[in-house]
Amino acid sequence: MNQETEKTLAFFGRMTANLTHEFKNILAIIQESAGLMEDIMAISPLAKDKYQERFNNSMNTIKNQLQRGMEMASRFNRFAHAPDHNSAELELGETMVHFCTLTERFARLKHITLQADRQNDQEIKITTNPLLLYMVLFYSLDACLSVLPAQCEIRLISVKKDEKTAVEIACAGKQAPSPEQFFTGLRQSNAWGDLENTAEQLNAELKCNTDDLCFYLILK
Amino acid sequence: MNQETEKTLAFFGRMTANLTHEFKNILAIIQESAGLMEDIMAISPLAKDKYQERFNNSMNTIKNQLQRGMEMASRFNRFAHAPDHNSAELELGETMVHFCTLTERFARLKHITLQADRQNDQEIKITTNPLLLYMVLFYSLDACLSVLPAQCEIRLISVKKDEKTAVEIACAGKQAPSPEQFFTGLRQSNAWGDLENTAEQLNAELKCNTDDLCFYLILK
Repeated sequence: MNQETEKTLAFFGRMTANLTHEFKNILAIIQESAGLMEDIMAISPLAKDKYQERFNNSMNTIKNQLQRGMEMASRFNRFAHAPDHNSAELELGETMVHFCTLTERFARLKHITLQADRQNDQEIKITTNPLLLYMVLFYSLDACLSVLPAQCEIRLISVKKDEKTAVEIACAGKQAPSPEQFFTGLRQSNAWGDLENTAEQLNAELKCNTDDLCFYLILK
Repeated sequence: MNQETEKTLAFFGRMTANLTHEFKNILAIIQESAGLMEDIMAISPLAKDKYQERFNNSMNTIKNQLQRGMEMASRFNRFAHAPDHNSAELELGETMVHFCTLTERFARLKHITLQADRQNDQEIKITTNPLLLYMVLFYSLDACLSVLPAQCEIRLISVKKDEKTAVEIACAGKQAPSPEQFFTGLRQSNAWGDLENTAEQLNAELKCNTDDLCFYLILK
């Protein structure tokens, strides 16, 4: 297989493996709650009323997880169809909410908060290659996660910069490194090289704000 | 993106989209059973005993689906890691059980039975490219599904043929086409061209048994 196929598949494989872990988590929580409900039902009829509240709590947990699972499945289905089109019209803020839902676990494992935002609540429509856009967001996230310590936060913000459409990747946190350490770390990470190559394929420009823990993917 | 990347991603995307549908099905069944349990619990305490059996049935359905979901997540996780290695040692029969669990829905949607078997229960170990193997199995299945009517069956059997390791793809069914129609249909399907190309990449030989609804992927 050629290098492009390997890189793209490695990305897709990591996203998919991540999804299977999220599903296992969802099912495990449902399993725990269902087990508790079963225990309650196994007690005498009088005890059932006593534990009504715990029973209801378990049922609510199950319902919440079912909803979370359904949403995750729908979003991942949409992601799985990203390679179908070389070009599609997207609303950038919504795409980033979508991306953050799918990848939030990567940040969670490092105790880092991941969040999507829109500058001034402004909707920005762009026509782009959806898969390459997901890939640049993924490599940006991966690079940041490799240099930030726990308790930091990463925000992906859809912005207008110099009259162009861009994604701002802004990091913060009490224990965060200095901008100099941050950018040195990013450039040394494996993900950064992939980010540069993929940004080039997408005709996107990578611009670092070296005064702050912030860089931009300028899309057009 | 080059053609190889597009083809491989299209395959991976279809497998992943299929998984998200399976998960939605699992969650929908759990949701239905949980809803029924909630209804029962909302009735007076005396009624609870009356509906104990229905309650237990719902709980069992939930537990079965949880187990199915966990297994599906584990198997898909393994699949998602297939691109990690260009070469791996596999037991062929087990790999086909694995593949059939992941793709059974494609057959189910067409009311066709999909089954994995081992010839004489014999374990066969091979060293091969796992992703390309999945791809040739997928295209074989896809080609068969495009020509077989409902109620047919497809069996993937790990065999030794002419002292070589092979996968036998054997189709049957009362409404099945004649061998001539079957092979004409296969060769006209979109999947057949992909199968031939991918088999070549895998150094596998494609051999049709034109007396029967059966063909072989001879692996080495």
